[in-house]
Order: sequence, then C-alpha cells, then structure tokens
Amino acid sequence: MLPLALTMGDPAGIGGELTLRAWQARRHGVGCFVTLDDPERLRQLARDMRLDVPVMTVTAIDAVPATFRSALPVLPVLLAVPAQPGKPEAKNAAAVVASIERATDLAARGLAGAVVTNPINKAALYDAGFAYPGHTEFLAALTGAVGKQIMMLASPALRVVPVTVHASLRRSIDMITIDRIVAAARTTEAALRREFGIATPRLAIAGLNPHAGEQGALGDEETTIIGPAIEELRRAGMDVSGPWPPDTMFTATARARYDVAICMYHDQALIPLKTLDMTHGVNVTLGLPIVRTSPDHGTAYDIAGKGIADPSSLIAALDLAAQLAARRAAAVGVGRNL
Amino acid sequence: MLPLALTMGDPAGIGGELTLRAWQARRHGVGCFVTLDDPERLRQLARDMRLDVPVMTVTAIDAVPATFRSALPVLPVLLAVPAQPGKPEAKNAAAVVASIERATDLAARGLAGAVVTNPINKAALYDAGFAYPGHTEFLAALTGAVGKQIMMLASPALRVVPVTVHASLRRSIDMITIDRIVAAARTTEAALRREFGIATPRLAIAGLNPHAGEQGALGDEETTIIGPAIEELRRAGMDVSGPWPPDTMFTATARARYDVAICMYHDQALIPLKTLDMTHGVNVTLGLPIVRTSPDHGTAYDIAGKGIADPSSLIAALDLAAQLAARRAAAVGVGRNL
Repeated sequence: MLPLALTMGDPAGIGGELTLRAWQARRHGVGCFVTLDDPERLRQLARDMRLDVPVMTVTAIDAVPATFRSALPVLPVLLAVPAQPGKPEAKNAAAVVASIERATDLAARGLAGAVVTNPINKAALYDAGFAYPGHTEFLAALTGAVGKQIMMLASPALRVVPVTVHASLRRSIDMITIDRIVAAARTTEAALRREFGIATPRLAIAGLNPHAGEQGALGDEETTIIGPAIEELRRAGMDVSGPWPPDTMFTATARARYDVAICMYHDQALIPLKTLDMTHGVNVTLGLPIVRTSPDHGTAYDIAGKGIADPSSLIAALDLAAQLAARRAAAVGVGRNL
Repeated sequence: MLPLALTMGDPAGIGGELTLRAWQARRHGVGCFVTLDDPERLRQLARDMRLDVPVMTVTAIDAVPATFRSALPVLPVLLAVPAQPGKPEAKNAAAVVASIERATDLAARGLAGAVVTNPINKAALYDAGFAYPGHTEFLAALTGAVGKQIMMLASPALRVVPVTVHASLRRSIDMITIDRIVAAARTTEAALRREFGIATPRLAIAGLNPHAGEQGALGDEETTIIGPAIEELRRAGMDVSGPWPPDTMFTATARARYDVAICMYHDQALIPLKTLDMTHGVNVTLGLPIVRTSPDHGTAYDIAGKGIADPSSLIAALDLAAQLAARRAAAVGVGRNL
C-alpha cells in the first residue's frame, strides 16, 4: 500500500492536532500516511497539547513506510510565520496552498495512494489570492478535471451526493437540470462499482418538492426534470429509483433499499447525513483522476489548540481513502480510465 | 380527564385497525378515548383481523369513561357503503367529514379533551366536494381560527415547526416573510409554555441557505428576513437563537440546546424528524382553540387490512393529546384565551 498524503489545512485551525491524534490511532488500524506540514509547528503543538507524538522530517516519500510505525512522517512545507490557534494569518496562505499542491502531485504521480485534506479557511486564502470556491475545485484544476468533480458525503449509515452544492437555495433550484443529475449519477455509479466495491450500485434519486411534488400539485420539477433524468439513467442500464419524497427516504428502512442517495441540494443531503452521524462523515471527491477524501467539518477556530477536537472524522477520512486507493490500485490491473 | 375524540379517517385506510390496536394498548397507559366511526365496520374489521376488541356503541360521550375499560366506545357515524381496504369510496366521504365535524364539536364544547384525527385521503374527499387543503385548515375553519393554525411535528427526539408547508420548494421560499416567521414562533412559544409545560421555551430558528448563507455569499434571506425576525422576537423577550446552518442544527448536541426548531420549509423540518424517528412522530396543530394531534403518516392503502400497520404513531398522538389537554385544562383555572 502506498502512503496517503495528508495536507496541513489551515494551521490556525484544528488540522494539526487532528493529524497528531490520527497518527496515535495507527495501532487501531489507521493506515500509513505522511503529512505535508511544518515539522516545527507540529512538534510545538505536540508539546503544547502534551501528546506523545515524535515528529520525523522525511525528504522523500519512499522513507514514509519505515518511519510511520515509530514517528509521524512529515514532508516539510514551512510556514512563513508561527501559527496561532484560532487566528488565521494571510502570510501562511502560500504554505497552505503549497501543501495541497504537493499532496496532489504525489497522488497524481502514483507515489501517494490518495490525498486527504485537513480543513482550510477559504476567506483567509482569498485574501492571499486563492481563486477557487474550495478544495474540490482547486483539486479538479490541479488534476485537469475541471467540471468533473462530484462531492459525496459518506458515513457508516448513509452515502449522499448533492447535485447542487454551494449556492443559495433559490439558485440551487435553478441549477437542477437533467444533465446535472445524469452526470452526478453516472460519476457516482462508476465510483461505487470501482472504488467502493459494489457490483450493482442502487441509486435513490430524491425529489425536490414536499412529497416529491404530489403529482404536480406541489411543484413540477419531479415530472419535468428528475423523472426524465431517471428514465435516461435507466435506459443506460443503471439501477435507479425515485423521485422519492425527501422526508421519508432517509429512515433506516428506506436506506436499506439503496447504496447512495442522489440529492437535489446541499441541505437535503447534509441534514440527514449529519443528523444520523455527526462524527464519522467523510467528504469524498468523485470524478478526479486521484482519490481524495476529507473530514466533514471546518477549521473550528473556536476550539483550536484546546485539545478537545474530535479526530473521528479525519480518521474515518484516512480509513476510507485507504480502502478506495486499494480498490483503485487493484483495478489498474484490469485497465482503468477514470 | 375528559375522553379524547378520535376520528374515523379514511375507512379504506389503516385508521380503523390502528384504532382497534390503540384501544388494546389501554393497559399500557393509553388514555380514555371515543371514536366517531361506524360500529359495524369496526366489528367486522376486528373479526377479519382476529383482534379481540369488543366494540360498544354509546349514544352520549358521558358514557365513554365507564365503557372504555371493557370495550371500545363508538359514537356512531354510519358509512354509506361498506368500506374496502385500499379502495377509497367517494360515497363515504360525507361520513369521513361528519366524523371530523362531530369530534371537533365535542372538543369545542368542552366535552372531549382533544381531537385526534386518523389519516384521510384528500383526493377522495375533493371528489366529494371537500374544499380544504387538509385536516388542519378544515379544523381551523370549524373553530373560527382560519390563518392561525401552525403545524408542529413532535417526536421524543425533536420538535419542529415548518414556517411554510404544502407548497413547492420554490414557492415556499417566496412565502418566507418576517411576519410569517414571527407568527409561527409566537404561536409555538405560547403553546410550549402553556400546553407542553416548558416555562421558558428555547427556540432555534433555522437558516434557509447552505451554511445559513455564509454572510450573504450563499443567499441573503438570513440577513434580510430571518435575522430581522429573530431580532423582533428577542425584543418581545423570547429566548430565540439563529439563524442556524440547517445541516448541523439537528445533531444530538445541537438539539440539546433548544426545545423547538422553527424551520423554513417542509423538508427542512420533516427530513430530520423522520430520519431520527419514523414511528413516534406526532402532528400537533397549534393556534386552534382546541387541542388536536394526529399520527404522522397517511392512509397507507398498500397495507390496509393486512394487519401489519404500526399503531405507534397513533398511540403517541393519543398520549400527547392527553398530556396537552390536561395542561390546558389546568391552565383554565388561571385564565386562558388561546
């Protein structure tokens, strides 16, 4: 197994302490990873938080597997100024971006199994000239896959893919088209087959309106957009059901009938996911030539440096990245062109 | 305690069998109720489903308490034609409506503690000239409270009040106004204090957009509508928080911080409620001069008559109605004008 490449994230956020704790969880099965970070700031953080984590600088990724058992391996990306918990610093934006670029490069060249990203603060990066709405779009640009990226959120209880993501609810409704639904479903179906090991993925497509529109009485997107998208996907041979009434499709009984819910907007996907399991949600970017996961939370400035941040979501992101990378590596033998 | 008045609901749906099973649950604490139904059809149903439920016709509600222990008391409302499970019959619509009218009249005259409604099929009633979008609006009209009714869904895990309900998602967004939010919150707060026994109710107001709009980047309803509504409610002395990012406000940790979530649209309220607890949700109508609850499911034609319908939600609706009626009765002594 190739090591995973874990980014620094915002050094004023909780990423550093989560990285230290994730390494401590290696005895509980967390696979080998290297972080692209400032070794000195990680050492300081370990001292401040009284975490027994030896930090070892490595100069090449080949050295990572031998190091990982006894120390946290770090490929150095140096900060411009010391990081302070809870206080974002524009001078460190270049290092935050470089960490993402180097991790992506390692994965794209086949030297790392996947990229796992610690949370960033977009506002702090915008001030320093970063021009992407977020990680996902930046990774798509770095890997030549602009417009192909699809966000999936996965927890042990539920997988969801929102067709529209970071736009107002009003604009999200305008953005729902047959093509967007079909593209999201196709990318998702391919990823579930090849990287999640599900031979015949079952996709449940959500309605948009209450009761899925009640035959047009409560909105017509189900008949004019979602229904036709489902027909198109069925003609392509996929196992697709819907449009489902959104409020009843996330119960335990309903979830047992599908492998992923294709949702129409951000909160339709994220409300059930986070309500069911706040701590083990993982963000997975589908449609890229590399495997990428991330924890499903932000920089959490309010608790950064206090030693109380929960590493469960980062650990889940590392675990899932390792699984997806292993299946992708196995698939290479029989040819792949994702 | 006054008996509760339980309506027939659609006689082709699961209402009748749920009524029989709810009476069987009386030894587990279900309070005294009378149903407004056709005694002969209930007897037939009990025979068909092999349920040991003696059905006793009563001619006045005074006779109900003495009867309830040994038989299911029924104030007769006769069907025009025999009911068949799963097959709605327009000829019986008048009886369905009469059952609701009589139950409401009993509660309005102080002879029943509350109205509990079994599910109806609106389409079947429309064909027979029924002119209301649903139970709630009909009850508001019957009790002279048109426009005052507010829908709350309550389960052991969560209470939610959607500010907009049965409209397309697009139209729901258009319907969100400061006045609507303030009215829903005020009615809810008064009911929580007086009927739910919560001295200082804590209201959490949801945002509309992803991340509650991210300071306007993802929509402005939080700054132009929801924020000002919150300010107005605070000036009135209420304990109100928000606008909260919708996806993180229904986790166990978040739910511990409020007594009710005021939501902007149907599915924002109902997705978390049903995802958390499909079987114990109760629909409560606030803002009426009577107490009214109902189970949080429909007629379920597909399983009607098969003996597999789960009475949990109806039993929860009866239990909650009894609690609310008791507190309202106790409040009468110190004056009330709901």
